[in-house]
This record gives sequence, structure tokens and C-alpha cells, in this order.
Amino acid sequence: MFYTPATELARSIRDREISAREVVQAHLDRIERVNPQVNAVVTLTAERALREAHAADERLMTGAYAGPLHGLPVAHKDTHETAGIRTTLGSPIFADHVPVRDELLIERMRAAGVITLGKTNVPEFAAGSHTFNPVFGPTRNPYDLGRSAGGSSGGAAAALACGMHPIADGSDMGGSLRNPASFCNVVGFRPSPGRVPSWPSVAPWSTMGVQGPMARTVADAALLLSVMAGPDSRDPISLETPGETFGRPLDRDLTGLRVAWAPDLGGRVPVEPVVNEVLGEAAKVFADLGCEVEEACPDLTGADEVFRTLRAWEFELKMGELADEHAGRLKQSLVHNIEFGRALTGPDVGKAEILHAALYQRVREFFERYDALLAPVSQVVPFAADLEYPDEVAGRPMIDYLEWMGSAYFISATGCPAISVPGGFTPEGAETPGLPVGLQIIGPHRSDLAVLQIAHAFEQATMHHTRRPAL
Amino acid sequence: MFYTPATELARSIRDREISAREVVQAHLDRIERVNPQVNAVVTLTAERALREAHAADERLMTGAYAGPLHGLPVAHKDTHETAGIRTTLGSPIFADHVPVRDELLIERMRAAGVITLGKTNVPEFAAGSHTFNPVFGPTRNPYDLGRSAGGSSGGAAAALACGMHPIADGSDMGGSLRNPASFCNVVGFRPSPGRVPSWPSVAPWSTMGVQGPMARTVADAALLLSVMAGPDSRDPISLETPGETFGRPLDRDLTGLRVAWAPDLGGRVPVEPVVNEVLGEAAKVFADLGCEVEEACPDLTGADEVFRTLRAWEFELKMGELADEHAGRLKQSLVHNIEFGRALTGPDVGKAEILHAALYQRVREFFERYDALLAPVSQVVPFAADLEYPDEVAGRPMIDYLEWMGSAYFISATGCPAISVPGGFTPEGAETPGLPVGLQIIGPHRSDLAVLQIAHAFEQATMHHTRRPAL
Repeated sequence: MFYTPATELARSIRDREISAREVVQAHLDRIERVNPQVNAVVTLTAERALREAHAADERLMTGAYAGPLHGLPVAHKDTHETAGIRTTLGSPIFADHVPVRDELLIERMRAAGVITLGKTNVPEFAAGSHTFNPVFGPTRNPYDLGRSAGGSSGGAAAALACGMHPIADGSDMGGSLRNPASFCNVVGFRPSPGRVPSWPSVAPWSTMGVQGPMARTVADAALLLSVMAGPDSRDPISLETPGETFGRPLDRDLTGLRVAWAPDLGGRVPVEPVVNEVLGEAAKVFADLGCEVEEACPDLTGADEVFRTLRAWEFELKMGELADEHAGRLKQSLVHNIEFGRALTGPDVGKAEILHAALYQRVREFFERYDALLAPVSQVVPFAADLEYPDEVAGRPMIDYLEWMGSAYFISATGCPAISVPGGFTPEGAETPGLPVGLQIIGPHRSDLAVLQIAHAFEQATMHHTRRPAL
Repeated sequence: MFYTPATELARSIRDREISAREVVQAHLDRIERVNPQVNAVVTLTAERALREAHAADERLMTGAYAGPLHGLPVAHKDTHETAGIRTTLGSPIFADHVPVRDELLIERMRAAGVITLGKTNVPEFAAGSHTFNPVFGPTRNPYDLGRSAGGSSGGAAAALACGMHPIADGSDMGGSLRNPASFCNVVGFRPSPGRVPSWPSVAPWSTMGVQGPMARTVADAALLLSVMAGPDSRDPISLETPGETFGRPLDRDLTGLRVAWAPDLGGRVPVEPVVNEVLGEAAKVFADLGCEVEEACPDLTGADEVFRTLRAWEFELKMGELADEHAGRLKQSLVHNIEFGRALTGPDVGKAEILHAALYQRVREFFERYDALLAPVSQVVPFAADLEYPDEVAGRPMIDYLEWMGSAYFISATGCPAISVPGGFTPEGAETPGLPVGLQIIGPHRSDLAVLQIAHAFEQATMHHTRRPAL
């Protein structure tokens, strides 16, 4: 049962073919068996989950159906506040932090019927795309336990890949929904800013960090998005389109779609050859689906500066005081980012905003000529779990823990919705065979539904998502 | 004809009871007669307007109806780019600047059928709420030619008050749609950020400056908003609700509405007693309309710092280079703001953003208890046109050209839609009798339609807008 799609599980529960209690118990059993190897779910609330499942079954007997996720088990990202459940953010500072309320995202998922199993692992404060922290240690890749599961939604991605739960919530500033999905052969969708309202937030107008869904299939991610999305006055940038929009069938004929393929984002990022060996084949699938595919990339000038500047500015804003109060208790890379933020002038931030606006318009114009852009999610395949980050990519040394994530974070800076969908595996003859490679599909601003539809068509044509880890 | 409402003029033109050419000619005649006294329309394109009106009539004969503004004459704010028409921004630097394209707002108005008469006067770069500049001089108040018409959409407000055109476009960062409306007894509506998409913009995510409609009646402002509003992908924060939403009749029964009245914004701003003498009566009208009215104000802590910091940061971003290139050719007050922006640190901007977010949430919670907030638009009545700004208000000295505008710019910082609607006149016995006083009606975030409806009910109950200047 633990690899049954969420859409099907939800239907079976609603139709009372199976009880929420059975579903939750099966997933708890699965967690017990495989989690010790991957360390994806770091806080488990088994008793509460069974109690909630029981209540969900009882409600259903009286005809009370909470919503489209009624009875589905899920562990929440450990940066998302959960009432009464420890939320550490992967930091020793918050090791014993128990929020008194659910944040908006969790509130919506719970109102739609999910059963909370616990929390999934993250890097400290979700900074960086490799999941390790001093509270819980690293999360391991289900396809190779010696390797990284990616991050920052690394626990979520590994848990999905192992069948610990069918859907998961994540967040993405520089690739945190996409990179771990790529590393773990699951789906991670970075929606448009405002698509998934967020609250509380000290910088609610920022468009860099977004929350979104992860799952093993695109349809399951869309099901979860249908619950997460829709306006809420607590988020000043929340989009007005109702969430239900994303709950419809995703089938779409891609014939005639103009698809751009950017294997190295127009020469802006080094990419390990094996990644594009796999993704080159993936791009061809679009031609088979009737699309016009050509190599092209929007001009991403400024994307690097925009992302790095606005991220550091936001880190200082959110964590500057904390870093002072708890000197020595934050990881060095994070302290560097905060220090960079602290050293920025107002005009530095202004210049980033000017570049940001110009980038937005250039990308908008690019999408007048193309319906979708394909690119690698990650410049590398999953690397050794004991590294902080890959110190070189395709022979080029990396200056810090961010540089190897450019293929994801340059796209964050554009403001476009982007999905990571299973794109294939490194081939048998490769140096590192059998590792997942995610394909990034990027659409015009606010075209979230179209991105999901295109990814769904690719997924159905390739079925890479059905190749499970040997756990 | 020059005081006929836009809604009625538009209908008469559409039904061919009157020709666009007649309408345009009548307004050109009016401009010729009264504009020399007030200096509201500073660039006139009479021949072009007559040509366009002729073409509009011809199109209508063939059944081609451009849109809801077919044949209505308008002069555009001189900070709004108009293809082929000089756009000076009130600055000697741009005295001969002729844009090659219309900006988005103008594009929409023209597509909906307006006939462009020319441009309306502004302060230099629209900075400050008193309309004077070295290119065209001051705009004078139609109700007292020795006094200010307000600003920055001062030319627009004076033109409307004098019957030079029935609707006008404006913009509002710190009150620029509301303050001149208050001073000239017309309607100025500051919509929610993103309601009226703006392009081009170098800081498109900013929520401080917005564009919006002005008119002599609320219904006319709503008609114009119905054309201005609605999503456009060129503006990343544009709201998704279609513009047509605002084109419906505004009639609404206000019985039971919970209305807060904040005569001095909770003690935060000094207000000339005569302003609240007039507006106290206006507030009572809401009780007569069946509302529950009580004195209350949201906690506006931080509003001042938020507005001043983000405004200066944005000025540096937009005009920093220009100020360097053209040293000595910008007014001193503007240079001071740019210098302030230049001296900001990234963390200063971050702190303003934190205060901004907290303010947003407090105001949101306030509007869970109230449907609308009433306040003065301006802390003063129209002051002598030869002052740069009122140097004291109710006995309190003003530190700069912004401080007297707090009643408007504190509201800008909240992100709420706010309208200035004619609220009455200073009474006969007053030191300065017969001057217009605007009532500010503020609603919850994105409640633009409700704000228009409430303002319309007030307007219909009071009819202050029908008292014309003696010109």
C-alpha cells in the first residue's frame, strides 16, 4: 500500500474501501522499517496519528468528509510550525521548540484531512540543498545510502521515495523543493510566488522563498497544491485563483507546444556530463509528444546577483538578531550569508531589485516565444553524504555551498513556476550508475497549471517515477 | 456639458445622442476659458484630440465601439508616458522628453476609447503634495486661486473640478490621488497595490506607489477603474480580478456596517480643527445611513518609518543616477530624500520591511472588527500656493514637506485601498471659509469594490460634489 498514489488512497478512504487507520498503520510500519536507514522522518507522532486516523474514520462514518486529503498520512517539513509538535528548523537553538499553533500551510492541509505523522528533516534553517544538521544528523539518499538526499526538503523527498507517506509539504528559496526531488526521484513543485499563501512571515512581500507540494507523481503534487493554493488575507501577495483549479485532471495534448531546452542555462552553469546525458534523452521525449523542441535559454543576466543579494538581505532581516543572540550556534555558511546581508547598503538592495525587474521582463518576453523551458534541476547527481557540498562540478571548483545550485536558484530569481520531475537514471556504464536525475520544467509567470500538465504528460510517457529504491 | 458625469457622457456618445467631436470641442473650449487661471492642463494636443474624436465618431458609425470610455476626453498625468506627447515629469531635465510609447495605464485607457487632450501638471517627479515645478509653475486651486490644488495629481484634480475633462488618471505614493482630490472637491481613489497594473517600472514589486482613477463622482472613478484594473503579465504584482468587476452599479445598503472614525489617526497626526469640524459632520452621515460608527483607529506604529524608509530607498533606486548626472537640476527636498535613501543600510530597509509586515497584520486584524475606517485625507485645508508646504499644522511645526501628509501616507503604508470623497466645505464663520475638505474612506486589503460602494453611498447622501468652483 505504501506506494499507492495519494489520489487513489484518498479515493479508497473516502469510499470506505480502506480505513484511514489501516493506511496510517501501514505507513507507520513502513517508517519503522526503513527510516533508520535514511533518517527522513525525525520526529514521529505515531500515537497521535493513530488517534487522528481513528477520528477521521469515525467522522467519515457519519458522512463528514474533511476534504480532499481526508485520512492521508503526512510528515511535515521541520521548518513548518506545527501546534504541539516539536519544530526544530534543524537548529540546536530550536531543539526543544514546540509551537502553539499551526502555520497557514499546515492549517490548510489539516483542515483538508491529513493525518500528521511527524516531521521531516532539513538543513539548519533550511539553508543549502544538502540535508544535515546538528540536531538529527544527515538524511540519506534512498537510492544510495552513502549519498545526499538533497535539500532543504530532503527529509520529505527521501520519505516519499521510501513510501513513508504519499505527499509532503516543502519550501523552496534556491531549489529546496526541486533539488531533493531530483536526488530522490520524486516530484517537487516550486509554485509561483503567492500561489501558496504563507503565514506567519516577517518578509511577506518577498518572492524568493515559496512553499509548495511534493509527491511521487505529478497528479499527487497537484492534489496537494489544490489544498495549499488559493487566497488568504494573511499573505499580502497571495494569488486570487482558487486552489480547486489544480485539483482537476491534468491530461493535455502537448502537440505543437514550443519547448526550449537549456542544458546549461545558456552556458551560465557547469553541469556534470552524466546529468545531461540523461536529460538529453528526456528532452527528446517532448519531440515524441509532438512538441517543437529547440535549444534556447532566456538571458539570465543578473540572476546570480539578484538571488544572492536578496537572499542575504532576507537572511539578515530574519536571522540577524538570532545570530547575535546565539553566536557560535549557527553553521558557518549561514553566518557568512547573514554577514553578507549585514554589509549590504540600501542601494545594493536597490540595484538587485533593478536587475530583478529587468530579468522578470526578459523572461516574460522569452515565454512569448516558448511555452516551456527544460533544464537540469541539479548540476550534479547525488554526492557523498559526508560532504558539506560538492567542491567541484564538471571540473570547475565551487566557491561556496550555493554555487552548485545555480541551475535551481537562477530560476527562483525569474519568478517562474518550476517543477522537478523524474527524468531518468544515470546509466549502467556511468561512474555512478543508478542515480536519479530530475528534469526541471519551467513555465511562464503564474502558469502553474500548465507546468503541472506538461510534467504530467512527460511522466506518463516515461514512467521513471515507478523505479523504486531497493529498501 | 462640461459637468456631465462620465458615465452619462459615455452613454450619450455610445447611443449617438452626441458626437465625440462635440464633447471634445466643448471641453477644449472650457480649457481655453478657465485653464489660464488654474494652470492644470500644461500640454494641450487640441488638433490631435479633434482628429481622434472625428475618428471615434466614424468608428461608431460602423458599429465599432472601442470600449466603455469611447469618445471621453482626458488629459493624462504628466508623469505618465504618452507616445508622441511631451512628458516632462515636471522636471527641467525632461522638459523636451517625448516618449515613443504609451505606458500600460495609458495604453488601456486609449484602448477603451479615451481621446487624449494633453497632460496635467505635477510637482517635480511627483514628489510632494503641492503641484508646482520649474517647467510649468504652480497649479492653482479652483476654489481659491491663491491656494494650492494639492498634489501630486494636482493638475488632474483642478482640471476635473473645473470641468476640463470628466475623468483623469493619477498616481499615489503618499497621497497623490487623495490629497489633490480633497483640495479640489473631487474623487481620488488609491486602489490596492496590483489592482492597476503598472509598466514599465524599475521596482515593480513595490507596494507604495500605485496608479488609479480620479473623477468628479465615485461612479465615474469606478468606470475608469474598470478599464485600468485587471491582470497584466508585465506587472508581477497585478491582481487577477478582471477590471469589469468595478464597472457594475455601486448601490449598496450600508445598514449595520461597522465604521471606525479616526479624526487624528489615533493621535498620530496634528489636524487643523476646521478639518475635523467638517469631517465630524461627515462621519455622522454614516450613522444616518444605518452604520454603527465609533471612534477607533488601527495601531499605526511604524507606519511613518515604513513609508519614509521605503520611499527614500525607492527614490535612490529610481533617481539616484539621475541626481548625480544632473546635479543642481532637482529640487532640494527631492535631493534630500535621495540622499537619505543613499545612506540607508540593507538592514535599515530590512527593519522597515519587518515593521511593514507587522503593520499589515495589525491593520488586517482591525478590519476583522470594522468594515471601514474614516479619516481626514489632509491634515490641512488648501494652503497658500506660494508656500512649498505648510510649515505648521494646528500649531505644530512641520519638519519637512512630507510631515503634513501623514494622514494620507500612513495609510499608504498599510496597503489598504483608500478613497478621497468630497466631505464638505469649511463653514462661513471659519478663518478660511468655502474650502473643500476630503473625507478618506479606507477599507480592508483588496476591498476596492466595497470602498467604492461605501463612498458612493456617502456621496449620494451628501452631494457635496455638486458644489462647483466659481470659474
